[in-house]
Amino acid sequence: MITPQLVGELLQQVRAQSPLVHNITNFVVMNNTANALLSAGASPVMAHAPEEMEAMAGIASALVLNIGTLSRQWVEGMLIAGKTARKRKIPIVLDPVGAGATTFRTETCHQLIRECHPTVIRGNASEIMALISSDIRTKGVDSTESSDEALQMAKTLARETQAVISISGKTDYITDGTQVICIRNHIPLMPKVTGMGCTASALTGAFAAVSNDALTGAAAAMAIMAVAGEKAASAAKGPGSFQMHFLDALYTLNQDDINQNLKL
Amino acid sequence: MITPQLVGELLQQVRAQSPLVHNITNFVVMNNTANALLSAGASPVMAHAPEEMEAMAGIASALVLNIGTLSRQWVEGMLIAGKTARKRKIPIVLDPVGAGATTFRTETCHQLIRECHPTVIRGNASEIMALISSDIRTKGVDSTESSDEALQMAKTLARETQAVISISGKTDYITDGTQVICIRNHIPLMPKVTGMGCTASALTGAFAAVSNDALTGAAAAMAIMAVAGEKAASAAKGPGSFQMHFLDALYTLNQDDINQNLKL
Amino acid sequence: MITPQLVGELLQQVRAQSPLVHNITNFVVMNNTANALLSAGASPVMAHAPEEMEAMAGIASALVLNIGTLSRQWVEGMLIAGKTARKRKIPIVLDPVGAGATTFRTETCHQLIRECHPTVIRGNASEIMALISSDIRTKGVDSTESSDEALQMAKTLARETQAVISISGKTDYITDGTQVICIRNHIPLMPKVTGMGCTASALTGAFAAVSNDALTGAAAAMAIMAVAGEKAASAAKGPGSFQMHFLDALYTLNQDDINQNLKL
Repeated sequence: MITPQLVGELLQQVRAQSPLVHNITNFVVMNNTANALLSAGASPVMAHAPEEMEAMAGIASALVLNIGTLSRQWVEGMLIAGKTARKRKIPIVLDPVGAGATTFRTETCHQLIRECHPTVIRGNASEIMALISSDIRTKGVDSTESSDEALQMAKTLARETQAVISISGKTDYITDGTQVICIRNHIPLMPKVTGMGCTASALTGAFAAVSNDALTGAAAAMAIMAVAGEKAASAAKGPGSFQMHFLDALYTLNQDDINQNLKL
Repeated sequence: MITPQLVGELLQQVRAQSPLVHNITNFVVMNNTANALLSAGASPVMAHAPEEMEAMAGIASALVLNIGTLSRQWVEGMLIAGKTARKRKIPIVLDPVGAGATTFRTETCHQLIRECHPTVIRGNASEIMALISSDIRTKGVDSTESSDEALQMAKTLARETQAVISISGKTDYITDGTQVICIRNHIPLMPKVTGMGCTASALTGAFAAVSNDALTGAAAAMAIMAVAGEKAASAAKGPGSFQMHFLDALYTLNQDDINQNLKL
Repeated sequence: MITPQLVGELLQQVRAQSPLVHNITNFVVMNNTANALLSAGASPVMAHAPEEMEAMAGIASALVLNIGTLSRQWVEGMLIAGKTARKRKIPIVLDPVGAGATTFRTETCHQLIRECHPTVIRGNASEIMALISSDIRTKGVDSTESSDEALQMAKTLARETQAVISISGKTDYITDGTQVICIRNHIPLMPKVTGMGCTASALTGAFAAVSNDALTGAAAAMAIMAVAGEKAASAAKGPGSFQMHFLDALYTLNQDDINQNLKL
């Protein structure tokens, strides 16, 4: 379903088309995710005011909704942007940051799923499981579950929502409810840098914008995260330098890097 | 009262327990402080919506209130989180960023102190002095006073508020109104990076969460800042690389680093 | 009109006076622009609450208004700060981020120009052209036009608004409607890092604060961006390391660097 060659071709497409990715995302990671999109070749815009959501989602190639620092006021903008994106049939990525930590977050995710019909839902294991089962508790924004445990629930969630589900963890799983793609690169430094999951969601938007189907786009984005992560980890001395090397790697990544480092 | 050995033990506790630190903090530093908490071994969450403040402060091990980019709407969330934290007896750290620069900031600090009873108040000299004397003017968010001059007022503030006061400066002073702990590492690059004070407040939350008393926790956090700062400064070529090395240092810091670099 | 010698002297003035620059800016770049101001020797403050705008703009040496993540609520603060700054005759820099992408942004810029009379308007080519012609469409926050094409419209805009117009691009143009200063350093990595334009606007505030006239101040800021950019680019391996080296370069820049690297 996905090969190093295809991942490389999609990266070339992101660089060639430079899709405009409209992000309504959290304050913590805006800078990182904008930089990751730029480094990968896409064009990011961060905007949330209800007054301009139709206009901004109206010129974008993908929309990313991320509830990391959620407030009532921002949900209004997310809903307008989401409905505009849906009407225009551009991909919508939902990152349910902290779902399972508070009822407000879990319920907002359910509302966004119901009203915007995201193309891809990308989160950690706890967050994905919390969208199916109210027994799951997320520790703030950090997962308490492994991605292996989340896979069955992810398949159920995919079938219920018609969305591709992308779970990051030691193994990343991307599923449409039937097919499952695994990315087996495991980079221990990655969860030590804030916003790497959010970065994965932003790149998922960029890759979905240039892919024929959402499953491939979502998987290619996680593959690029993995390969850039491997390169960064090999040069890093800690989370600070990892973050810097990660952006450099996204910018310089080539087919050889993908062939050598991607573990499918 | 504090020794390199104790600082090292508390760092081990942060890494072992990975306390969830709930931050209601400013837009400028959210990324840095989240990364510093992760690098030190803690688990950060940034959340401010009144709708989820009871739930989020309800699962946290410490709460950090930072008024750096204050607005009326956020104070509401701070008050709910603060009262929840107080009820649960988890440590509350207040960072009075820019107190003394505007009446709005100074008065909001007084309200937060009155209604939430912070365990630790950590700021620069001007900010701490402005909480006692309305004659003090802070230059935006930068101190116009030395920490030496602030010490007497800090003792008074500690006795009045029952909080530990932690003043950063050339010498850091941490006092409960009676005892005074000094950290004598002076790192000139530190005030050249935005949000290092805010990072100190976030780490104070993490260390207070694993300490038996607030004075020790607050002092250990400043000790870790100092030691990581020394390591970063020795490798840095300016504020940009300092910031990167600082996170790497927090992540890799060991007992030897503390023994060799901490100046009590 | 501008010489390497004069740029160096103004940099010395920024370092000596450390002007307080009050920024009402976007969430994406707050950290970068605060750090760039600190590295250059200025003192940044980020504040937006209407309740403290008179007080904060009342102690500042320059005001920077940046609409990157605009919302209705923030415009209120911008207007109060802008009017306070105007009354105090301190320089006001407007960065019309994303003007031309949505009507909300373009119209807000017109309102800020009308009511606050910015001293300098600094943007990319699309943004500047969109303030003159409603035919121009900005791709999110990225320019679709070259700065060469924007120059004539910039002159018109300068005459209409009485503001200095500063356009960044392959060549930077700074004009008061009559005189034109060109900075010919072209640094391809610069648009691959988010917020470099916003950083230019923030530094424009700092340099305008220490300059006798706005044209010189605006040009000196772009010159410093260019020279620090050249130094950073020569050391960088991608956008991640560029960003780090850029801050280090701002901090360490001397007259020799300016003499050797500035292309007027």
